[in-house]
Amino acid sequence: MISFTCDYSEGAHPKILERLAATNLEQLPGYGMDPYSESAKARIRAACGTPNAEIFFLVGGTQTNSTIIAAMLRDYEGVVSPETGHIGVHEAGAVEYTGHKVLTIPSHHGKIDPAELEAYLTVATTDPNYEHMVFPGMVYLSFPTEYGTLYSKAELQEIRRISTRFGLPLMIDGARLGYGLASPACDLTLPELAGLCDVFYIGGTKVGCLCGEAVVFPRGNAPKHFYTITKQHGAMLAKGRLLGIQFDTLFTDNLYFEISRHAIDMAMRLKALLLDKGCTLFIDSPTNQQFIIMENSRLEEFGRHVAYDPWDRIDADHTAIRLATSWATAPEHLEELGKWL
Amino acid sequence: MISFTCDYSEGAHPKILERLAATNLEQLPGYGMDPYSESAKARIRAACGTPNAEIFFLVGGTQTNSTIIAAMLRDYEGVVSPETGHIGVHEAGAVEYTGHKVLTIPSHHGKIDPAELEAYLTVATTDPNYEHMVFPGMVYLSFPTEYGTLYSKAELQEIRRISTRFGLPLMIDGARLGYGLASPACDLTLPELAGLCDVFYIGGTKVGCLCGEAVVFPRGNAPKHFYTITKQHGAMLAKGRLLGIQFDTLFTDNLYFEISRHAIDMAMRLKALLLDKGCTLFIDSPTNQQFIIMENSRLEEFGRHVAYDPWDRIDADHTAIRLATSWATAPEHLEELGKWL
Amino acid sequence: MISFTCDYSEGAHPKILERLAATNLEQLPGYGMDPYSESAKARIRAACGTPNAEIFFLVGGTQTNSTIIAAMLRDYEGVVSPETGHIGVHEAGAVEYTGHKVLTIPSHHGKIDPAELEAYLTVATTDPNYEHMVFPGMVYLSFPTEYGTLYSKAELQEIRRISTRFGLPLMIDGARLGYGLASPACDLTLPELAGLCDVFYIGGTKVGCLCGEAVVFPRGNAPKHFYTITKQHGAMLAKGRLLGIQFDTLFTDNLYFEISRHAIDMAMRLKALLLDKGCTLFIDSPTNQQFIIMENSRLEEFGRHVAYDPWDRIDADHTAIRLATSWATAPEHLEELGKWL
Amino acid sequence: MISFTCDYSEGAHPKILERLAATNLEQLPGYGMDPYSESAKARIRAACGTPNAEIFFLVGGTQTNSTIIAAMLRDYEGVVSPETGHIGVHEAGAVEYTGHKVLTIPSHHGKIDPAELEAYLTVATTDPNYEHMVFPGMVYLSFPTEYGTLYSKAELQEIRRISTRFGLPLMIDGARLGYGLASPACDLTLPELAGLCDVFYIGGTKVGCLCGEAVVFPRGNAPKHFYTITKQHGAMLAKGRLLGIQFDTLFTDNLYFEISRHAIDMAMRLKALLLDKGCTLFIDSPTNQQFIIMENSRLEEFGRHVAYDPWDRIDADHTAIRLATSWATAPEHLEELGKWL
Repeated sequence: MISFTCDYSEGAHPKILERLAATNLEQLPGYGMDPYSESAKARIRAACGTPNAEIFFLVGGTQTNSTIIAAMLRDYEGVVSPETGHIGVHEAGAVEYTGHKVLTIPSHHGKIDPAELEAYLTVATTDPNYEHMVFPGMVYLSFPTEYGTLYSKAELQEIRRISTRFGLPLMIDGARLGYGLASPACDLTLPELAGLCDVFYIGGTKVGCLCGEAVVFPRGNAPKHFYTITKQHGAMLAKGRLLGIQFDTLFTDNLYFEISRHAIDMAMRLKALLLDKGCTLFIDSPTNQQFIIMENSRLEEFGRHVAYDPWDRIDADHTAIRLATSWATAPEHLEELGKWL
Repeated sequence: MISFTCDYSEGAHPKILERLAATNLEQLPGYGMDPYSESAKARIRAACGTPNAEIFFLVGGTQTNSTIIAAMLRDYEGVVSPETGHIGVHEAGAVEYTGHKVLTIPSHHGKIDPAELEAYLTVATTDPNYEHMVFPGMVYLSFPTEYGTLYSKAELQEIRRISTRFGLPLMIDGARLGYGLASPACDLTLPELAGLCDVFYIGGTKVGCLCGEAVVFPRGNAPKHFYTITKQHGAMLAKGRLLGIQFDTLFTDNLYFEISRHAIDMAMRLKALLLDKGCTLFIDSPTNQQFIIMENSRLEEFGRHVAYDPWDRIDADHTAIRLATSWATAPEHLEELGKWL
Repeated sequence: MISFTCDYSEGAHPKILERLAATNLEQLPGYGMDPYSESAKARIRAACGTPNAEIFFLVGGTQTNSTIIAAMLRDYEGVVSPETGHIGVHEAGAVEYTGHKVLTIPSHHGKIDPAELEAYLTVATTDPNYEHMVFPGMVYLSFPTEYGTLYSKAELQEIRRISTRFGLPLMIDGARLGYGLASPACDLTLPELAGLCDVFYIGGTKVGCLCGEAVVFPRGNAPKHFYTITKQHGAMLAKGRLLGIQFDTLFTDNLYFEISRHAIDMAMRLKALLLDKGCTLFIDSPTNQQFIIMENSRLEEFGRHVAYDPWDRIDADHTAIRLATSWATAPEHLEELGKWL
Repeated sequence: MISFTCDYSEGAHPKILERLAATNLEQLPGYGMDPYSESAKARIRAACGTPNAEIFFLVGGTQTNSTIIAAMLRDYEGVVSPETGHIGVHEAGAVEYTGHKVLTIPSHHGKIDPAELEAYLTVATTDPNYEHMVFPGMVYLSFPTEYGTLYSKAELQEIRRISTRFGLPLMIDGARLGYGLASPACDLTLPELAGLCDVFYIGGTKVGCLCGEAVVFPRGNAPKHFYTITKQHGAMLAKGRLLGIQFDTLFTDNLYFEISRHAIDMAMRLKALLLDKGCTLFIDSPTNQQFIIMENSRLEEFGRHVAYDPWDRIDADHTAIRLATSWATAPEHLEELGKWL
């Protein structure tokens, strides 16, 4: 059986495994103080065009989100997120566990509408009772979103203008960042994205690593003692080399971008295949997550041959499902899928 | 330069890397639902003699400690620990971050004195003001301790009797569990240890893994929804296979025990070497962490050749240092060390 | 200038002040161990028809809500509330500060629709990803609601059935409980209400006290060590007598019910006056909070004579405002108001 | 039976009750926005000689401590306290509940030794592992201490110098502040004390109020949005007048200082009486808490006539007990006590 369930079905890109093996018996300092972590940071700074960036390697996405958010907010502040934001839905309340409210605004296929954001922040800061309410303390968005969609550069600039107007840092959840940047629909570069936010992370788990997310504070603007904060959150690896070596490899010879592009190529071929087979798109996604609407009557048989992610109930007879490609998707996977559509 | 700084200087046992490579392109479910995680759990249950154990794979030690402790305590409870317990000293307040106090009792080279524990609990539960104080909610100890020392079976039984008398679960931090069990001074087996506590973990990070700790609730007594709790704590890996495959390998053909025994063999040869060279032991440790007292005047030169861990100030002229062996320590390391003692 | 801003504009009912003065120099034990607190509990148990109720006196509403909710939830659980519930809007994130998410469902003039609650809980407990999401752990509603509305007995019974079906305790925020029970539109008694929920509180602050809320666990079902939990939350008064004496007075000779009835009489006269003056009701509230829609052009002048609470923006030219009566509202207040409508 | 158990056995100073009654039916804004709260703040600023002080009225001591501490610390910081500090012992873990560790140093009859503080901070900020440990974020002390003792001006200046050297704000818990300032052994004034710390509070609960603590940030240095923080902590009274009127009364015509002086006069007469009767002092306290050592064999009979607070076990046959005076202690109380000593 073939799986299009998600983009973390396989292990790591073979070059990463090779590098882990090649360096395995080197005795290295722990907790991210090893030279591979340093080298990875330098390469990421170069890729982002942010020579003063402070970079930290954390282990997984939920952990990274809650650690960053807790570090950037004061106790009385919450994080503004579209209501479909990963932090408010599928992270088991990790943000609230650190004491902070997720302040939701409407989601448009995963995206914030800048005008709605501005209206929300205007009310939140002028309400006669605002001192009895949670203060918006930062803005969170995902690039690409949980629905595979992308913000245009103009949209990000507008969100940036608004968050700056209200004095709020802007965070970009880049769990699938590579797949966003590699999309033909993407009109910004990594340095441009880095310049438009106050913190973002470069997802490794879903883009070729065994685990790991590289948190980037682009202008040396990390919260004081963020290193200790990661320890307190249980987000610091003793063998930091595991993260350092992976990201060092990913950012050598453009590997991160190449494997992302491969995933997007596969996704575009997947979309063409789906349309060719007469499938109805649920969302016209430009990234590695593709969504179709399928008759419930077909799901059982289809599911016997293809693992997929059930996404949303459309009506009594139809379900939206997700099919995702990744760095590891091969043309044969698509061929096999084609048999069962 | 040779390093005896710690037991996490190298990567992973080669068999683990081989297994990761061999399974790399298999498409597997995420979040620990893969067959390797299941197999690893079965092997660990067998090794512990606990057929009903519930087992969870977490990523690192601090994370594991704070997740278990928060899950087992009610809001008004704290965790009793010797004052040198890792949770109260070197985890950046991760336990307090979850809202719980670490209630300290004296440490004797890292160990709890059972009589002192019983006296403490007696006072804590009968103090006229006890309802205005933090309730002891569980007992935490490390095996081996942060000072390399071990509890005898009789001591653990006594601590178990006391914690049971006061209705408190007993937790054993086994970050270095293998090195404890493999010590010639250890008079209990893994199944005996499992039978004497309510939760413990089998450290992987320090015993051959890239990362990972296997949490064992030996009698199917995991806190309700512990799986979700790990997610909330940022302790759940998307690619759970990384942990499953590592532990499955460690518990195949007794690898965990063999590599632990190797580390202890090296440690005993290290101790002999130290004594042979006229060093003064700081603690006569039976496990992989060895401690000596060195003249400060010698430290700089020594440190140019051997990486070590400064441990404690003895007096104006002397410092206690730690030298640790691990699964990766080779006889040549000892030879090299011998040159500089 | 007359004020209809809220129901906490005046001090305490005179009988309470008299009783505080009369007992002032008695030497009494602290922390709620005084005989007045005991007597007040006995009277409340009698009034509720709950001989086994456990009762605690806390100081204010936000504190009471967050303390109860934190005490009743496990770490991985959230509290289900209509989106206008006080806990999710005007309590500065006090619930999230204790680590818990407020899970919102739609609000209908402040009320939960039972069918929507059941649908929500059904999805929340069967979603394929529910183990990665916050578990609903209890249901919260206000009686009367923040919009002055009331649940019928049948509605509460239905909500009770649903919360029981899903194993969730039901909490009733009774900050204005007296005003609800005294409404002619109310079809249930205090004992009936006590029988339909797992915890509720009898608001004192807004119903005649200087401060104080009486938390009732009707069937002796208080969370373990709730007393200590109130201490931990800063919700325990050293001079518990202040709360005990107030509630003992309120529940002597039906004072609580009489002053509530007075407020409702005043509210019904207020509503008649508003209608008589041609005002448009925003909500047809059966309790002490009345809401009208006023032209913005009139607000400034009106506000020079009558203090009111701006409630909601209706459109560019109209605003909904709240006018509240209380135990302290006198007929002359209404006469004065009449002049400016 | 007479009680010397504590300093919160009676209600409020009669002038406070009179003032509450006199203003009872005035319609006032809630949440501390009333003119009495403003007036009280002005009087306190004058009494402290701190024209720019920001002042907040909270309800009780534990609440005040945990709210201030949480507001002043960053997540990764803890509060340094002598090990007998109220926050670490008798507040049910309220500080830890907000996520912060209480970092203890030795207590000398309740007091910090400045040299020990400096040594502790030196180690804590230079330890090779300090980034894996809780950072000291502020210094907490009580004036008077929980043992009735006082710091001299020189000692406070030295502690101030040290906390400034390490960049840490200094907090003074003044739950019994009046009794400290009124002691003949006190060599500093309220303005001097205000000048030596970054935040302190003027205890009302134990010095004549029904409840209430006035938090003073002497140089307009309140943490941002402290008002909202008090709301989030459940520490804001809807009827803020209750606190405003009490403190306005206390700081009119020196009432706070006069009633404190009275309590100290009574305490000194109490001490003389105790010594006269041949009692052994446990501590030679200069404030309103007096401590003696009593034979256990006498305690039962003594306790039938005099309520006292058991303090500490001395040996198998002796117990230290506390006898406290207050603003409400009358000479007849002492006469009655004298009969049973």
